[in-house]
Amino acid sequence: MNTFGREFRITTFGESHGRALGVVIDGVPAGLPISEEDIRRELDRRMFCHIHWLNPRCEPEEFEILSGVKDGHTQGTPIAIVIWNKKAISSYYDELWLKPRPGHADLAYYLKYGKFYDHRGGGRASGRTTAAVVAAGAVAKKLLAQLGVEVAGHIIELGGVEVKGSYTFDDVKKSWEKPLPVVDGEALAAMLELLRRAAAEGDSVGGGVEVWAVGVPPGLGEPHFGKIKAELAMAAFSIPAVVALDWGAGRALAKMKGSEANDPIIVKEGRLALESNKAGGVLGGVTVGEPVYFRVWFKPTPSVRKPQKTVDLAKMEPTILEFKGRYDVSVVPKALVALEAMAAITLADHALRAGLVRRDKPLRDPIAR
Amino acid sequence: MNTFGREFRITTFGESHGRALGVVIDGVPAGLPISEEDIRRELDRRMFCHIHWLNPRCEPEEFEILSGVKDGHTQGTPIAIVIWNKKAISSYYDELWLKPRPGHADLAYYLKYGKFYDHRGGGRASGRTTAAVVAAGAVAKKLLAQLGVEVAGHIIELGGVEVKGSYTFDDVKKSWEKPLPVVDGEALAAMLELLRRAAAEGDSVGGGVEVWAVGVPPGLGEPHFGKIKAELAMAAFSIPAVVALDWGAGRALAKMKGSEANDPIIVKEGRLALESNKAGGVLGGVTVGEPVYFRVWFKPTPSVRKPQKTVDLAKMEPTILEFKGRYDVSVVPKALVALEAMAAITLADHALRAGLVRRDKPLRDPIAR
Amino acid sequence: MNTFGREFRITTFGESHGRALGVVIDGVPAGLPISEEDIRRELDRRMFCHIHWLNPRCEPEEFEILSGVKDGHTQGTPIAIVIWNKKAISSYYDELWLKPRPGHADLAYYLKYGKFYDHRGGGRASGRTTAAVVAAGAVAKKLLAQLGVEVAGHIIELGGVEVKGSYTFDDVKKSWEKPLPVVDGEALAAMLELLRRAAAEGDSVGGGVEVWAVGVPPGLGEPHFGKIKAELAMAAFSIPAVVALDWGAGRALAKMKGSEANDPIIVKEGRLALESNKAGGVLGGVTVGEPVYFRVWFKPTPSVRKPQKTVDLAKMEPTILEFKGRYDVSVVPKALVALEAMAAITLADHALRAGLVRRDKPLRDPIAR
Amino acid sequence: MNTFGREFRITTFGESHGRALGVVIDGVPAGLPISEEDIRRELDRRMFCHIHWLNPRCEPEEFEILSGVKDGHTQGTPIAIVIWNKKAISSYYDELWLKPRPGHADLAYYLKYGKFYDHRGGGRASGRTTAAVVAAGAVAKKLLAQLGVEVAGHIIELGGVEVKGSYTFDDVKKSWEKPLPVVDGEALAAMLELLRRAAAEGDSVGGGVEVWAVGVPPGLGEPHFGKIKAELAMAAFSIPAVVALDWGAGRALAKMKGSEANDPIIVKEGRLALESNKAGGVLGGVTVGEPVYFRVWFKPTPSVRKPQKTVDLAKMEPTILEFKGRYDVSVVPKALVALEAMAAITLADHALRAGLVRRDKPLRDPIAR
Repeated sequence: MNTFGREFRITTFGESHGRALGVVIDGVPAGLPISEEDIRRELDRRMFCHIHWLNPRCEPEEFEILSGVKDGHTQGTPIAIVIWNKKAISSYYDELWLKPRPGHADLAYYLKYGKFYDHRGGGRASGRTTAAVVAAGAVAKKLLAQLGVEVAGHIIELGGVEVKGSYTFDDVKKSWEKPLPVVDGEALAAMLELLRRAAAEGDSVGGGVEVWAVGVPPGLGEPHFGKIKAELAMAAFSIPAVVALDWGAGRALAKMKGSEANDPIIVKEGRLALESNKAGGVLGGVTVGEPVYFRVWFKPTPSVRKPQKTVDLAKMEPTILEFKGRYDVSVVPKALVALEAMAAITLADHALRAGLVRRDKPLRDPIAR
Repeated sequence: MNTFGREFRITTFGESHGRALGVVIDGVPAGLPISEEDIRRELDRRMFCHIHWLNPRCEPEEFEILSGVKDGHTQGTPIAIVIWNKKAISSYYDELWLKPRPGHADLAYYLKYGKFYDHRGGGRASGRTTAAVVAAGAVAKKLLAQLGVEVAGHIIELGGVEVKGSYTFDDVKKSWEKPLPVVDGEALAAMLELLRRAAAEGDSVGGGVEVWAVGVPPGLGEPHFGKIKAELAMAAFSIPAVVALDWGAGRALAKMKGSEANDPIIVKEGRLALESNKAGGVLGGVTVGEPVYFRVWFKPTPSVRKPQKTVDLAKMEPTILEFKGRYDVSVVPKALVALEAMAAITLADHALRAGLVRRDKPLRDPIAR
Repeated sequence: MNTFGREFRITTFGESHGRALGVVIDGVPAGLPISEEDIRRELDRRMFCHIHWLNPRCEPEEFEILSGVKDGHTQGTPIAIVIWNKKAISSYYDELWLKPRPGHADLAYYLKYGKFYDHRGGGRASGRTTAAVVAAGAVAKKLLAQLGVEVAGHIIELGGVEVKGSYTFDDVKKSWEKPLPVVDGEALAAMLELLRRAAAEGDSVGGGVEVWAVGVPPGLGEPHFGKIKAELAMAAFSIPAVVALDWGAGRALAKMKGSEANDPIIVKEGRLALESNKAGGVLGGVTVGEPVYFRVWFKPTPSVRKPQKTVDLAKMEPTILEFKGRYDVSVVPKALVALEAMAAITLADHALRAGLVRRDKPLRDPIAR
Repeated sequence: MNTFGREFRITTFGESHGRALGVVIDGVPAGLPISEEDIRRELDRRMFCHIHWLNPRCEPEEFEILSGVKDGHTQGTPIAIVIWNKKAISSYYDELWLKPRPGHADLAYYLKYGKFYDHRGGGRASGRTTAAVVAAGAVAKKLLAQLGVEVAGHIIELGGVEVKGSYTFDDVKKSWEKPLPVVDGEALAAMLELLRRAAAEGDSVGGGVEVWAVGVPPGLGEPHFGKIKAELAMAAFSIPAVVALDWGAGRALAKMKGSEANDPIIVKEGRLALESNKAGGVLGGVTVGEPVYFRVWFKPTPSVRKPQKTVDLAKMEPTILEFKGRYDVSVVPKALVALEAMAAITLADHALRAGLVRRDKPLRDPIAR
């Protein structure tokens, strides 16, 4: 339901225009250094406040750690983080009360929850709820850092513009110094232009991202039903607007012969390794010590200003919806940060499952306060 | 680990050349009619014995229902099905003992399980293990039939040949009367030719399939982390060789504007409906009463006769592998049947979670024996 | 870990002297009426503020519902409730930093979490954390009320004084009008006197309680490992200080012959029933439509003013602990309310698992706001 | 449902007079030595074939390991064990088809499963199904042995006769050389006499057992809802006929003052320890390095030869049941072995959860076959 993970386990709650969003993070061993700053940094990354026209209502999140952390370290108990919703402008949504927005969760939620759900700002289905996931991802990243694992992603497609050329994991990390994390400068310029135009038209665009995890040790993942690939796929499709996923070289592999698709096995620095890594670091659902990577595509934001056909729920008659609220021209940048978080959470979960971190005792054990 | 599902729950076991494969199916209410014939039909569909050159070692599976079924009905207790392995020819595999096959689980399993795992025939990582999933899928399909839900899939791409033109769900079901379930006759001919050529060359091909579920009632799926989309993605990526997934219109949506991508909401026969169904029957992770569909791509079978670079594990030195065993020229046909099964299991699970089937009492309650 | 339940699922968090306690309640269908008053009533019942000498620091809890409820009804989304900790007097605990209190979780937490856990007021192990469970129990009771199920308990033993005579479920419910819920007036007087004396001596007492659930429909519970009995036992032993449990007639059954212990089966008002109910409403782990009841015993509060032998953790040398903080002379009254809550949560969970409540649609479906 | 455990996870299946019983054991790392003999020894211990009048139909179980074990070691994959049912004499049960046996699961199963369940020999509710649990317990004990943990139990009460005097863990283990595992010779003689008499009368008796786990490391158990105490309570109440449980000193603690009940904390051999161990090795739900122990009571076998009141299900009229089948005069001896198994499984699960055993690699890693 609203819980993800087996040993590193998050439970999220909250509606977009309700009192607060939040997450309870369970399973973290005692003694992991964690500060408000660690959480804030990830929440800020998600906001892209520096591109003000992309996100007109941009303000840093206000959050509190309610439990599980003391004197800058985890206690081993559940970490609850609450992100307060600001006085949101909900009046936009009054008109939508009886007009489900095409492409949104509105219709599905109406059928499942009747008129009891909070539709304002997308309610529980809002992309905004991924802020809670991102907060949890900050903790997962800290835990992974102890194991030498690093997770980062970038945008590879936006509104049809695709990134060209090759790049390294360092390029991916450095791309975050740009307005949008895009390794290819030419593509970035085209994307920004395209976003501006879509905003002006009252329309929205989709796109794709790629997430890498490097330093992942071999032996993570559980066949048959706890495969790294399968659980990362579930993690990815938990994020709103995801429509496609390629693992490793992905769909291109389906057009290759077996003799082309297989990654030769070699010895590198005394260890078994893959010569290429079309497999995305996973064979048989289990990591082999190579970087893990996958790509995910998102549909365009369903909220657009253009008139759309919908139904008046009271009269059960066709009507036209003209949305006047604020919306993100593309979900892709924020969703990328959420996807990084979900990847980090999934890998942290598998590291705990595999026993890489002891939990019968703290990470470190100082006696002095 | 080897368990999937929350209320309709399957636990699989077995290695390809071990004593047996099997599955325990838990959560089925009492009183569901089920016969050995129901199981056999699905197991037979998976074998494609009618294309003998595709699957040279083809024989019907021998299986037993060990528990949970009596007098042609479920008892409400766990249903254990065991599929006996025949005297497999394992000698092919002796040479592979120290030579992990590129593209296979061998390398990952060696790193995780050391030399304790059974590598013969792919062992636990073999596509053959999906026979157990297919047996469970037969039970799930019987339960879904009670709710008016039908699941079926077809091949949409093989070795680069793609199906053209439009088709209906009836076309999809009828395609199973052909040698391979392909709605487009021209594509089918090209695919068969291509398979034959690959077999002759000692190589293999990948491809793609599409699975439909029709009659799915609205309101199934649990945001945030039990979304239908997310759990079907996990289900799909649990099947060996899956490399990509498109939900609904999939990656094409990422290139559309929001005004193009959204499915207009209409009233049809007195009910809320979608004018188009690019969303694949799901909004916000919850079904809306439209058909559910998604596409999945598979890499080519990693086993090929062509020489491949690998490592001698004893000497940790490069070596060449020349595989001489039998192999499937493409995993796609069998994997499609496994994917149908996983889709049926996932939907049956969600039907139980949502309370569509009572389990405090039997489906029907005759007193006479 | 900190999550309980499969379909009605609670996740708790919080330390006794931290920022807040709380709970996320997941799985509740949309449309269940729930008010702050419903929560407050249960939280107040737990406090026993009317016996001021029993609980010297008594003040009503301050709590907020952060999500999942709108306009007095559940939304179908997770319900997060946060209970703010007041400025607690933590100075008592400074001296305890290196002196684990005998009988408390201190020693175990020190071994597991090192000096990272919050020991103040018992931290995560405090009985106070059951306030979050009680808040969740209020929601479970509301859901059970829709099914005609009622849960209530009473004290049957305190400091060695045992309740005498027979009583009905109505007597149990009415006992809550007394200072302590004890059906036997004479026993109550003796218990109150005994509590006063123990308080004066700086000591504490244990005791026992009984919880009833009436109106439980037949057919709840899942053999083998989801037996009602087994899950209620787990629920009960999750509450701090529980040391024993009797199901139905309990240990007395172990001394009977089979011919005495079996409850004869009869027809009552056209339905199958038990003539007696030594079985506590459950056979083979499944409810039969008779009242469910069980008894639970608690050890005395480990915090006492009397000097106790412990170890100085810095020096690893014996030392004497003289606890000066406030403590509950007995955990029994508060723990009883927590036990009622856990019983309600467990039964609500089983009602959902068995499909007694649909969750593909709301409980009721008004269109008007 | 029929699955127990999170990281060491068992799934059982099978009816008493069906084709077979069995269990799938998941989560065991690769490289654990395990032989058929290990399984057989535990299955034999459960049978008590040496007391032929206790168990007239006694024969050793026939079982097969279907998967997960190769060359005497675990593979890291699920271990499926099937125990074949012999040609059972089911004719006894024909008359019971419409006459639910008082005290048995019959009534509950009829209400939940209608007439679809297999009532013969108790079907899925039979104590015989614990044979599958015992097989899994054999594997858990092997894993625990690697960590220096040993589990053993003994009978402390039978038909009202209670064991007197003190004893050590060695006494407990040695008691298995006697006809029944009873440390007190006088009590044993009385118990055997009493069993004989009950058998002659066609009646049955209940009793109690105690289970010890020594060598349990500190730091196992997860507050709030994965407490060792809570999960062992659930484990115990999963076994048929359990009616009561005392943890540590149990109900006696409820009559003590806090100053008496607390175990003083001391330093022993350089480690923190408890002077006494009334706490049963657990504080706050977490182990402290002291022996874990608890006691469990069982009701008498519900099957007795004496006439009993029941209902004819077809006519819904009162009738008399005179059971003529074979039955165990007491469930206690067999149930004790099942309880040991459940305790071992629970502790093995917690050892894995806490990361005491790595699962990203095998226990040992020989390259040679």
